[in-house]
Amino acid sequence: MTNCILCKDESKPEEGQLIWRGDDCRIILVNDPDLPGFCRVIWNHHAAEMTDLTYGEREHLMNLVFAVEEAIRHVMHPDKVNLAALGNMVPHIHWHVIPRFKDDAFYPGSIWSPRIHQAPELVLSMRQKAALDLPNAIREQISRLY
Amino acid sequence: MTNCILCKDESKPEEGQLIWRGDDCRIILVNDPDLPGFCRVIWNHHAAEMTDLTYGEREHLMNLVFAVEEAIRHVMHPDKVNLAALGNMVPHIHWHVIPRFKDDAFYPGSIWSPRIHQAPELVLSMRQKAALDLPNAIREQISRLY
Repeated sequence: MTNCILCKDESKPEEGQLIWRGDDCRIILVNDPDLPGFCRVIWNHHAAEMTDLTYGEREHLMNLVFAVEEAIRHVMHPDKVNLAALGNMVPHIHWHVIPRFKDDAFYPGSIWSPRIHQAPELVLSMRQKAALDLPNAIREQISRLY
Repeated sequence: MTNCILCKDESKPEEGQLIWRGDDCRIILVNDPDLPGFCRVIWNHHAAEMTDLTYGEREHLMNLVFAVEEAIRHVMHPDKVNLAALGNMVPHIHWHVIPRFKDDAFYPGSIWSPRIHQAPELVLSMRQKAALDLPNAIREQISRLY
């Protein structure tokens, strides 16, 4: 769709680092200083809802989402992982896969809830350093899938 | 787990209406006056993350989530469906499946974002009436799965 930010200019750097690209999906490491390790799995073609996809496409996409979750757990050791496909702002299927920590800015709220504290800089910088290992960990998880 | 609200007292009315129960999951129509048609798909046994489940269990659970989405789209005609598994408050796998409307209290934010408007009472009551058809529509969608 011409007016969809996730459809156009796929080759441009988005709001993060492209970690992996397949025929149907791509995976981005989101650049969010509050939430190191936050990843997004984006369906390449325009579709708004999961049930707009075939059963096979849904399964493929969820397998990628879970591969990212697995890698995030292994690399980041979060207290919880959050998964969400909202798309109210950008109705083009994309999954947020977010490592959550008890001291992060929004915990135990969602990342869309009001900010309630500030994680110590040292902790955030350790997590940002840990997240450097995520791209390879995610690619390795995906290589095990197929 | 003894201290998990989603593990204990499964037979008690929760914060909504039990629509369907299987060996592994149950589905609740959430009683939220702002968000008619909001459903929750809850894994019956205690597990915190999707990747704590086997591949088969994940697929089964997501098929139920998507069946609920399909029924919600058919019955409620939302502008968007939101899917989320957070579990920061209650780390026991449960999926929120939420019909979203451009005039709902939080749109285009998440339902955890600050409330920004109030849908007209008449509109909400029409949606609440439409949601009465959801339990049967969800059960019918599930009956097609297996």
